[in-house]
Amino acid sequence: MTLRVLGVDPGLTRCGVGIIEVDTTRRPSLVSVHTIRSAADAPLERRLLTIARGIEALVDEFRPDAMAIERVFAQNNVRTVMGTAQVSGLALRAAAERDIPVALHTPSEVKAAVTGYGSADKKQVGTMVARLLGLDEIPKPADAADALALAICHAWRRDSQPAASAPAHGLTPAQRAWRDAEKSVRTPRLGG
Amino acid sequence: MTLRVLGVDPGLTRCGVGIIEVDTTRRPSLVSVHTIRSAADAPLERRLLTIARGIEALVDEFRPDAMAIERVFAQNNVRTVMGTAQVSGLALRAAAERDIPVALHTPSEVKAAVTGYGSADKKQVGTMVARLLGLDEIPKPADAADALALAICHAWRRDSQPAASAPAHGLTPAQRAWRDAEKSVRTPRLGG
Repeated sequence: MTLRVLGVDPGLTRCGVGIIEVDTTRRPSLVSVHTIRSAADAPLERRLLTIARGIEALVDEFRPDAMAIERVFAQNNVRTVMGTAQVSGLALRAAAERDIPVALHTPSEVKAAVTGYGSADKKQVGTMVARLLGLDEIPKPADAADALALAICHAWRRDSQPAASAPAHGLTPAQRAWRDAEKSVRTPRLGG
Repeated sequence: MTLRVLGVDPGLTRCGVGIIEVDTTRRPSLVSVHTIRSAADAPLERRLLTIARGIEALVDEFRPDAMAIERVFAQNNVRTVMGTAQVSGLALRAAAERDIPVALHTPSEVKAAVTGYGSADKKQVGTMVARLLGLDEIPKPADAADALALAICHAWRRDSQPAASAPAHGLTPAQRAWRDAEKSVRTPRLGG
């Protein structure tokens, strides 16, 4: 039984979309990763339409079991936060319209899940995403790596929920994620 | 020749939608006014879908020549600004998808256009909207009145653009709006 998760790192100039699967061993694997772009000199409404259609096309192509979107805060970069919020609204609507369960995760939650600590920098997140997915290179741009990290975070949180009442070896989800990530680096991957 | 404008006062709990027409005399008339609501206890993605579908249904029913949406600022009420921004994104997308020209107007621009000064309060805006449209009562809730004010503001600004190089009697658009509004209050309306 696999769970396929589509993560969205919302943005008006670059919107990262990453699709991963986890199996019963919790090991994530890459399905696909994309960066949807819109021209900075296009009218706002056209940019939003471009990004929305891009997200919807990927959702329809990859038919995820769940979606995860980065939570936007009003305190974020004032210059870009409105566009980011608008794109997150379009992604949430795309999920609701298709009856796909969707959750918002904060950047700290994502960093903690993937690297083991909530204040990791972009390079650390990218490095762990590449290791976890067995990739030779860090996915670029950072929006793409962040979207994959979101999807992994969501898959693990979802996956770990039934175990919440009986935590494996007394580890927190972040600690388990870290342990599993370490394992995946050390264990040669067989097959694709 | 009439111009039909649909104004959107974006909101997640209550989203005002007002449709007006202006003819060559610049007198605005009411076509329709609505408040789309979503349940505060519903999941965010469902609320966004409800509001988006409500806006799209009205756009498709009333087929406006132009749309006007209130510009949302990051500095606004932090508790509600994200939802408001997300709804504005959905409205912008609805316009782009239908090739309807759309513009954002700030609350100050709208107040100035409708009442003659940019710091008017909600009651003053509502009162002028009712007078301008020849209504017996102020449209309620305030979101509905604000959506109509947005539509009127946009119609007048658009209408006045060709005259910008040769302003009538040296009046600013706001002053002309005020003058016209005063006239419309004093002049008995003939017919509907």
